[in-house]
Amino acid sequence: MAKTNPGRFFEDYAVGDVLTHAVPRTVSGGERALYHALYPARHALYSSDEFAKGCGLPASPVDDLITFHMVFGKTVPDVSLNAVANLGYAEGRWLKPVYEGDTLTSVSEVIGLKQNSNGKTGVVYVRTTGRNQHGEPVLDYCRWVMVRKKNVDAPAPDTVLPELKTVLAPGDLVIPEGLDFSTYDTALAGEPHRWGDYEIGETIDHVDGVTIEEAEHMLATRLWQNTAKVHFDVSVRPEGRLIYGGHVISMARALSFNGLANAQMIVGLNGGAHANPCMAGDTVRAWSEVLDKAETSAPGVGAIRLRLVATKGGEPFALKDEGGKYRPEVLLDLDYWALMPI
Amino acid sequence: MAKTNPGRFFEDYAVGDVLTHAVPRTVSGGERALYHALYPARHALYSSDEFAKGCGLPASPVDDLITFHMVFGKTVPDVSLNAVANLGYAEGRWLKPVYEGDTLTSVSEVIGLKQNSNGKTGVVYVRTTGRNQHGEPVLDYCRWVMVRKKNVDAPAPDTVLPELKTVLAPGDLVIPEGLDFSTYDTALAGEPHRWGDYEIGETIDHVDGVTIEEAEHMLATRLWQNTAKVHFDVSVRPEGRLIYGGHVISMARALSFNGLANAQMIVGLNGGAHANPCMAGDTVRAWSEVLDKAETSAPGVGAIRLRLVATKGGEPFALKDEGGKYRPEVLLDLDYWALMPI
Amino acid sequence: MAKTNPGRFFEDYAVGDVLTHAVPRTVSGGERALYHALYPARHALYSSDEFAKGCGLPASPVDDLITFHMVFGKTVPDVSLNAVANLGYAEGRWLKPVYEGDTLTSVSEVIGLKQNSNGKTGVVYVRTTGRNQHGEPVLDYCRWVMVRKKNVDAPAPDTVLPELKTVLAPGDLVIPEGLDFSTYDTALAGEPHRWGDYEIGETIDHVDGVTIEEAEHMLATRLWQNTAKVHFDVSVRPEGRLIYGGHVISMARALSFNGLANAQMIVGLNGGAHANPCMAGDTVRAWSEVLDKAETSAPGVGAIRLRLVATKGGEPFALKDEGGKYRPEVLLDLDYWALMPI
Repeated sequence: MAKTNPGRFFEDYAVGDVLTHAVPRTVSGGERALYHALYPARHALYSSDEFAKGCGLPASPVDDLITFHMVFGKTVPDVSLNAVANLGYAEGRWLKPVYEGDTLTSVSEVIGLKQNSNGKTGVVYVRTTGRNQHGEPVLDYCRWVMVRKKNVDAPAPDTVLPELKTVLAPGDLVIPEGLDFSTYDTALAGEPHRWGDYEIGETIDHVDGVTIEEAEHMLATRLWQNTAKVHFDVSVRPEGRLIYGGHVISMARALSFNGLANAQMIVGLNGGAHANPCMAGDTVRAWSEVLDKAETSAPGVGAIRLRLVATKGGEPFALKDEGGKYRPEVLLDLDYWALMPI
Repeated sequence: MAKTNPGRFFEDYAVGDVLTHAVPRTVSGGERALYHALYPARHALYSSDEFAKGCGLPASPVDDLITFHMVFGKTVPDVSLNAVANLGYAEGRWLKPVYEGDTLTSVSEVIGLKQNSNGKTGVVYVRTTGRNQHGEPVLDYCRWVMVRKKNVDAPAPDTVLPELKTVLAPGDLVIPEGLDFSTYDTALAGEPHRWGDYEIGETIDHVDGVTIEEAEHMLATRLWQNTAKVHFDVSVRPEGRLIYGGHVISMARALSFNGLANAQMIVGLNGGAHANPCMAGDTVRAWSEVLDKAETSAPGVGAIRLRLVATKGGEPFALKDEGGKYRPEVLLDLDYWALMPI
Repeated sequence: MAKTNPGRFFEDYAVGDVLTHAVPRTVSGGERALYHALYPARHALYSSDEFAKGCGLPASPVDDLITFHMVFGKTVPDVSLNAVANLGYAEGRWLKPVYEGDTLTSVSEVIGLKQNSNGKTGVVYVRTTGRNQHGEPVLDYCRWVMVRKKNVDAPAPDTVLPELKTVLAPGDLVIPEGLDFSTYDTALAGEPHRWGDYEIGETIDHVDGVTIEEAEHMLATRLWQNTAKVHFDVSVRPEGRLIYGGHVISMARALSFNGLANAQMIVGLNGGAHANPCMAGDTVRAWSEVLDKAETSAPGVGAIRLRLVATKGGEPFALKDEGGKYRPEVLLDLDYWALMPI
């Protein structure tokens, strides 16, 4: 019997299955430094221990998206090795910051299944939880992917569709313990614009662009121990290696510093679509739209709900065509909650 | 007189010479993170402090190949700057794990010399020892290289050929102090296959491939402070930069996770050949063959002897042609001992 | 009003303005490891804690150029986002080594202004100071850049030209507290040549070359949180991304190890010119000239003033053409003071 991992096929999942993902990972200053090398990341709270301490935290946590990528990467061999498409995210919540020295693990529960009418594929819904070495959840999110069947004659499971919130309510968000923006330093953070300066409906063109190289996205994707072949092996994708969607998320989030430097902490992921593939040579740009705002119970801390769109060209603020389809230059449409100084 | 290092030529070596290699190096989480970014490395013991503690170690050591590359890199200016070919390795033993904060140095002793019949080159045999800041040996290996003579009229030295074991006996292997696999967690490690599940003669196709970029192999080679010109300077190698053989070793070892996830620690290097050059654009694949198995005195720990072959295409398990020569797509043929849970 | 940073234009500066630069940064072993991956850096004092302790320091500091790049990178959004040219440096002094765990900030003061006769641009002189988390200055340097006017009708400011030393006197240099080269180990450092072995006027061809890739210079430039568009975005520079001048400085300094391995610490920057643009594909080489030597009060420590020239080909030691212009293959002409064992 082959000892290599063939991945799971659609018929291998049952609702209620709990998948313990492999390869726990201890985080150090090395992952933080690489994140700064891979993305133009400049949010001060993730760059400086002193700044983070001034915000009530014990030290500077690693970027929330490092946590996301590490927790997500572990799920790939069990969830998406045979995936045809990464369909969506919902109910993502960052529950506790991750610090250097923490060790992360991931577990997923299958929460929904629906075979497609073609009988060849089906949609698998999982809720993934990342935990630190104390067993404390640090991140929790739902994701659904379309997975191939290996045996098309395998019987279709009963359809179970999980009830997922399209948007997290402000009360669902978990504010890191001790967070306090009442003495927040906007000069060191890089921009004067506070929570009160943003209006719902406002759009921001983040102006900057980054042309992506093969070496960069592969370094990033490996760093998160994401093993999906399509990102690394030209021989299985002669049209070019597909860039990990999370690389585009991090690139767009980092670019959004220019206009949203004070949207420091990501605490909620409402949804996201990888609208079109990204390949080396593409120049990634980003724009944001303010979707909502809410107060929080933490001193000086407001919540802002943002749409973050990454493109590889085209006009900013153009998202879909007349038929409601994403325009071909749109790479990412992400909906998240962040925390800002009021 | 020129102050730059011209490297040593064949006539500059004498049996018994001890070469103290320059540039000691302190290891941090940065080297570990870069290793994860450069290679699809997922062996749990080298990824997680918690997992390593569960195996009886004080923390997660750096990958055994980081130790190898750092110890090896220091030898390049003194041993292989004028080398024509890297001919072989033998009797490599990892003697103590290396942890963040350790500082490594290398010393080599010339243990053999043989001038070639053409009078223009000769083979130099060295035994290299890497030590930590306490002077404790962490790695010991023999290597022989073909080196040019500067002065072809220099007299040939007496031929001295060291007696080198073609294979380390299980009793030669040093098991890290405290190592205990009796409560080893295969779910977190990523595969269920234990020492008892592998049979001598069994072959494993590791399935995955990675297409290599120039930036990646140069980042890696510099990281180990290996200065050989051929890896960096297009103007001295118009046919393309030659990829450091150690980059291929690490890539193949990381790819072997898929099928050998529990072959955690490398403790012995019996031999190795860089069969053909590797260049950017090549897609590296790997396959393994189980050559031998042995019990050890450590609780729950078995030793497994593996052939690890890296290729840039072609059929897996095809190594040599009818004439006994390596097939042109074979990059590496490595013979090593690793430790697995019984 | 747009929330993104448009950068300052010439008319936005006034002599005496103090610019607090954003995004403080905590340094870890990650930045050190990346520096070793990005450049062939082998100076032992920056590689090994043990070696640095043997020189009287508490641990190995991060490379002096890491300090420079981090302090410099923070100034880009406020000083050079609309710069047409980076004209010069003067009076750069390293005042205190930076260690892992330190957090750096930068502040600049406008010390000079001169509108150009065309009325469209002007020269801005700033003195930038980098500080650690204790408020102690770690680096201080002057830099002048040509900046565009946004409104060409804005009135010209009074011309103020700062008095800048063309060369720092040896007495201006700050020797790190405790530095002691009296038991300096040249074998571990990599070369036998001490301060006394270098003569004023001597030139050294550093021999080695490195061909630069896009991914590498972008990783480096982002690592220092330098956001200038021209380094990242092909769409704004169809002729190719311009490599950050500091990348060339670090590459040349690292290459200079071969011949100047004992020129350990950079303590003064007298001046520097980025003579011609550097682009991916260029093979960078370096040569040095000994400009001056001086004794210091620290035990066993001498100061050496060096010209460091980076080229992308051509003959070593050829700097300018008959008309006094830099030859087209010259990339960098840097004038600095370093510390060597006597």
